[in-house]
Amino acid sequence: MNREELIHQIKSKRSFLCIGLDTDIKKIPNHLLDSDDPVFEFNKQIIDSTKDLCVAYKPNIAFYESLGVSGWNSLQKTLDYIPEDIFTIADAKRGDIGNTSNMYARAFFENMNFDSVTVAPYMGYDSVTPFLEFEDKWAIVLALTSNKGGLDFQKIEDKNGKRLFEQVLETSKSWGTDRNMMYVVGATRSEQLSVIREIIPNHFLLVPGVGEQGGDLKEVAEYGMNTDCGLLVNSSRGIIYASSDIDFAEKAREEAEKLQHKMDILLSEKGI
Amino acid sequence: MNREELIHQIKSKRSFLCIGLDTDIKKIPNHLLDSDDPVFEFNKQIIDSTKDLCVAYKPNIAFYESLGVSGWNSLQKTLDYIPEDIFTIADAKRGDIGNTSNMYARAFFENMNFDSVTVAPYMGYDSVTPFLEFEDKWAIVLALTSNKGGLDFQKIEDKNGKRLFEQVLETSKSWGTDRNMMYVVGATRSEQLSVIREIIPNHFLLVPGVGEQGGDLKEVAEYGMNTDCGLLVNSSRGIIYASSDIDFAEKAREEAEKLQHKMDILLSEKGI
Repeated sequence: MNREELIHQIKSKRSFLCIGLDTDIKKIPNHLLDSDDPVFEFNKQIIDSTKDLCVAYKPNIAFYESLGVSGWNSLQKTLDYIPEDIFTIADAKRGDIGNTSNMYARAFFENMNFDSVTVAPYMGYDSVTPFLEFEDKWAIVLALTSNKGGLDFQKIEDKNGKRLFEQVLETSKSWGTDRNMMYVVGATRSEQLSVIREIIPNHFLLVPGVGEQGGDLKEVAEYGMNTDCGLLVNSSRGIIYASSDIDFAEKAREEAEKLQHKMDILLSEKGI
Repeated sequence: MNREELIHQIKSKRSFLCIGLDTDIKKIPNHLLDSDDPVFEFNKQIIDSTKDLCVAYKPNIAFYESLGVSGWNSLQKTLDYIPEDIFTIADAKRGDIGNTSNMYARAFFENMNFDSVTVAPYMGYDSVTPFLEFEDKWAIVLALTSNKGGLDFQKIEDKNGKRLFEQVLETSKSWGTDRNMMYVVGATRSEQLSVIREIIPNHFLLVPGVGEQGGDLKEVAEYGMNTDCGLLVNSSRGIIYASSDIDFAEKAREEAEKLQHKMDILLSEKGI
């Protein structure tokens, strides 16, 4: 999916919501466990009930990988079931030397046809650029993460007071463009969003952590939104586990609707 | 596998060789392509011909993941085929927030029964520690990598002149012990091995890049070896692709033997 198609989707759906499919076999409602593929059945019903409210789905690859071959089958079926006009993110945090990153890119872009993959920057240039060589595909590079451990290294300052996540943004932004790169920016650090927007005014930001991880949507929009919106805000558990009962898909829709309504207002305030 | 078992293996085989199973379907000999599972058949013959010369096998997960479900099947069969007394490394460079890293740990330690997984440090504490909670399993954390992009961020100096890879070592070494953590240290940076050994004298180091990536075995041993050896030195393409013909396994053995002979001498010189 290219940038224009993503922006068009945001404008027409009045939403920049990404729903994280962190589907845990231990958390899905009991009544689904008898189906042939409970993980896929869960995802299918979540997608059916939310696809008009979100612009992206983000399967968390670890949850599928932990189930082995059956998990990869569930993931493939889920990906095939997501409507083509919705952006898909393989949240995989991959990254390795060039020829190996190329293999990961092929895994997610060719073998599975995802629109994007999240990528870890520690190994530098040749670990990221293989993901940029596919038409209308995206690398979403970790910049600032909202977990506790995000503080361990990402905020280390160099001699000039520049923090590691700023270095990552400044160095990596020249590797691609705002048409094939996005950045992961933790919502609970939204005081830093303005700093980030100075370095990368045009790139899309994937903001995890609204909901469970405590990010605030209004603040994210205030400091992170640009004239193309430029945001994908993710919620995973707050939506997909809103209920653990037979009404899980309905309750998921209600939670997604609440966020979409807020996003509609925030977009309007920005004149989008 | 615990530390004592690994050290015992090194002493009895007179080797600290790790063989990287970067098995690329496009590079394996033609005569194998007719078998039911060419990737596994290739690995099986490599293992048969080298298992007395090496102490570890390191499948590069990307190469299997790029083939989808069939790749994961080949990987599982390969892992099952590796003799139990040989250390196994899932070279996966995983790392995510706590509950997600836990899923990756389960994928490789429970679902697949690897002894260890390579882990990226960018997301800090809670991205690494879930890998440390399994008995006799190991996290192998990226410290200094030998690829060109390794220079982009790993050598950035903080206000006190401390480089990022040194910070990663100093901060992360307290997360676990030298019985459940190792570090990836690129061989082509062996002038830094002495600095690294000051920070972590006892941990095992996984040194990729001897061979194709230009590392020098003698230098690695000189600066990196400790009284328990403390090294796993990897060679991938130099061994497994020594020949692309029907004699590939034989030629792989010859290359592995050359390295093992050198390692035997280096161990003896160190009194091991």
